Amino acid sequence: MNAQTKFDELIVGFDVPALPGMDEADIQTPALILDLDALERNIKKMGDYAAAHGMRHRVHGKMHKSVDVAKLQEELGGAVGVCCQKVSEAEVFVRGGIKDVLVSNQVRDPLKVDRLAQLPKLGSRIIVCVDDLDNVADLSAAAVKHGTTLEIFIEIDCGAGRCGVNSTEAVVEIAKAIDAAENLKFTGIQAYQGAMQHMDSYEDRKAKLDVAIAMVRDAVDGLKAEGITCELVSGGGTGSYYFESNSGVYNELQCGSYAFMDADYGRILDKAGNRIDQGEWDNALFILTSVMSHTKADKAIVDAGLKAQSVDSGLPTVFGRDDAVEYLKCSDEHGVVGDPDGVLSVNDKLRLVPGHCDPTCNVHDWYVGVRNGKVETLWPVSARGKAF
Amino acid sequence: MNAQTKFDELIVGFDVPALPGMDEADIQTPALILDLDALERNIKKMGDYAAAHGMRHRVHGKMHKSVDVAKLQEELGGAVGVCCQKVSEAEVFVRGGIKDVLVSNQVRDPLKVDRLAQLPKLGSRIIVCVDDLDNVADLSAAAVKHGTTLEIFIEIDCGAGRCGVNSTEAVVEIAKAIDAAENLKFTGIQAYQGAMQHMDSYEDRKAKLDVAIAMVRDAVDGLKAEGITCELVSGGGTGSYYFESNSGVYNELQCGSYAFMDADYGRILDKAGNRIDQGEWDNALFILTSVMSHTKADKAIVDAGLKAQSVDSGLPTVFGRDDAVEYLKCSDEHGVVGDPDGVLSVNDKLRLVPGHCDPTCNVHDWYVGVRNGKVETLWPVSARGKAF
Repeated sequence: MNAQTKFDELIVGFDVPALPGMDEADIQTPALILDLDALERNIKKMGDYAAAHGMRHRVHGKMHKSVDVAKLQEELGGAVGVCCQKVSEAEVFVRGGIKDVLVSNQVRDPLKVDRLAQLPKLGSRIIVCVDDLDNVADLSAAAVKHGTTLEIFIEIDCGAGRCGVNSTEAVVEIAKAIDAAENLKFTGIQAYQGAMQHMDSYEDRKAKLDVAIAMVRDAVDGLKAEGITCELVSGGGTGSYYFESNSGVYNELQCGSYAFMDADYGRILDKAGNRIDQGEWDNALFILTSVMSHTKADKAIVDAGLKAQSVDSGLPTVFGRDDAVEYLKCSDEHGVVGDPDGVLSVNDKLRLVPGHCDPTCNVHDWYVGVRNGKVETLWPVSARGKAF
Repeated sequence: MNAQTKFDELIVGFDVPALPGMDEADIQTPALILDLDALERNIKKMGDYAAAHGMRHRVHGKMHKSVDVAKLQEELGGAVGVCCQKVSEAEVFVRGGIKDVLVSNQVRDPLKVDRLAQLPKLGSRIIVCVDDLDNVADLSAAAVKHGTTLEIFIEIDCGAGRCGVNSTEAVVEIAKAIDAAENLKFTGIQAYQGAMQHMDSYEDRKAKLDVAIAMVRDAVDGLKAEGITCELVSGGGTGSYYFESNSGVYNELQCGSYAFMDADYGRILDKAGNRIDQGEWDNALFILTSVMSHTKADKAIVDAGLKAQSVDSGLPTVFGRDDAVEYLKCSDEHGVVGDPDGVLSVNDKLRLVPGHCDPTCNVHDWYVGVRNGKVETLWPVSARGKAF
């Protein structure tokens, strides 16, 4: 197959950065690329871990926003479905054929509640989080209107300081209201400690999770005392899944970043003190970028700037080189790469590990899947921009 | 018109955050909204300024990435065309009917050079920047191959420290090469000082621009001494356009952010020491966000996080309120809003002024144009994600 010829047949205008069969060197940059071997290793490894620990794994679709990746996680990693954060994301995953979808967030706007209550009509199980009694009544009314059933997780704020209730009393009160409400089913607890996932030290993360697990256990016991059973207790991320898996109270994980990895997560340390991107997980996601100007001897200008990534958690790192090449500065359209030894030339390509995978994936329309130096597949970032 | 009824007719799945005719209160958030009155005022004001100073205004399309906004800038603001930063953006603007398009950046990848050289076939004038002799030969060969003419700006690095040559000698050498190359036309100079636009002090900005103007004048004089004329000398942004306009050497502006404004630009000061968002330009761009959880007395959780904006230049500000409500923290899907007086309720909406307009626009698919509390129009962010 001659990818160059295929491109020449197009007259004017590219909407994709690559086509299957192309050499990696011909990908139009900047582009998000997935090392498919690394991705498959990560997915299988987490799937095996969850299975060995008797945990359901509901993969976090908000990280990759891709129906194709979610299906690979079901196929290779035994995932039971996805969680996501917005109704518009859930709409994409349900339409894409994912049969068990949790909106791990509150849905309050009347029109959003109405949209959510319609989703079970497409044949998927729909779960949503609540942290407020008023929301129970609104969700019930919408489910009755559409003749559907919505399942409910009560969210506990177990340390992240965002949504969620703060006491077992509040959990019990809301669970009773759900039990009493038409067309709603109380399914369990959402307790994701998002604020500790990126703490470097394993012991610091464990201390935070110990607090979260105690809160969750107290809530589960409080519900049991009222005769209310939790079918699912859900939470856990790439920096904590081993704590939830061994807690005896959680039975569902919600990991996301493990599949792709990023520079900020990669820096955290495992129990033995090793970075988690040095053995635990492989970097599978990269921003492929090209040198586009090199008029200063010690600096190369590359084509990946703020439109190709999010720098909220720091700058990207340059992958797989043992020289002094380093990404130094990011503006809208450009990156300034330090090249003190003058080893880079125009059109040289670099693989950048993004600082933060979730919002970086959200600026791209396509994942370019590569293996052995060739483009193997092109996957849309199906729920890109679906924040509403 | 009853927008609610229109939405109810849809069964499952929203791909747009609003429909024309809806109340602003019903927009599905987070969404980018444009205050159309403010937008039109900004566009007319800059158009009038450019006309009064005999300047062409080539508006920067990389800011808004919208064919609709560019056409409004032509219609109401007398814009002569657009500049943009990537070939894929130029493809969108040319296909959208913009007749004068500058890629204010280097194009080096062989396939990108080939794509660019095809664009004049669609009837638009295409100009591109160079800072390297090798590039001249590549662009010429591609233009010859496709039977087109590419116009060339030589880019001077007048202080931003990114692409561009650093001396009049280099400008003259490259201009001669362009003159000698088939199917290329030397059209002028690109000299945008991107590093000073956001300096708060007017005098500091002026000092940087004085240096830039001196470099550009030297280059123009150097070319003239060799019998080479610059048809266009192009540059200038929202923080500097008055300097270029009164320089006697620039004849084309490239302003972008003035049309929308943002929190980071809004803070810079004019000659009289006033913020430029207090009189010079109106805030026309907002992230509309809703309160989705309020379980803590002094904090509201809103639905605009990192997937709805870029925080590279700081957090967004809350617009048009005289209370203590303040956007404090941004995570992937949430914003934490300080509400010390407990004035916010679930489903209350806030207008956020984004920290940085360009990369914030680049995460959204739609602009929702509002006037008098109603949705008037929905414009696609036509070149969103077009970074390659």
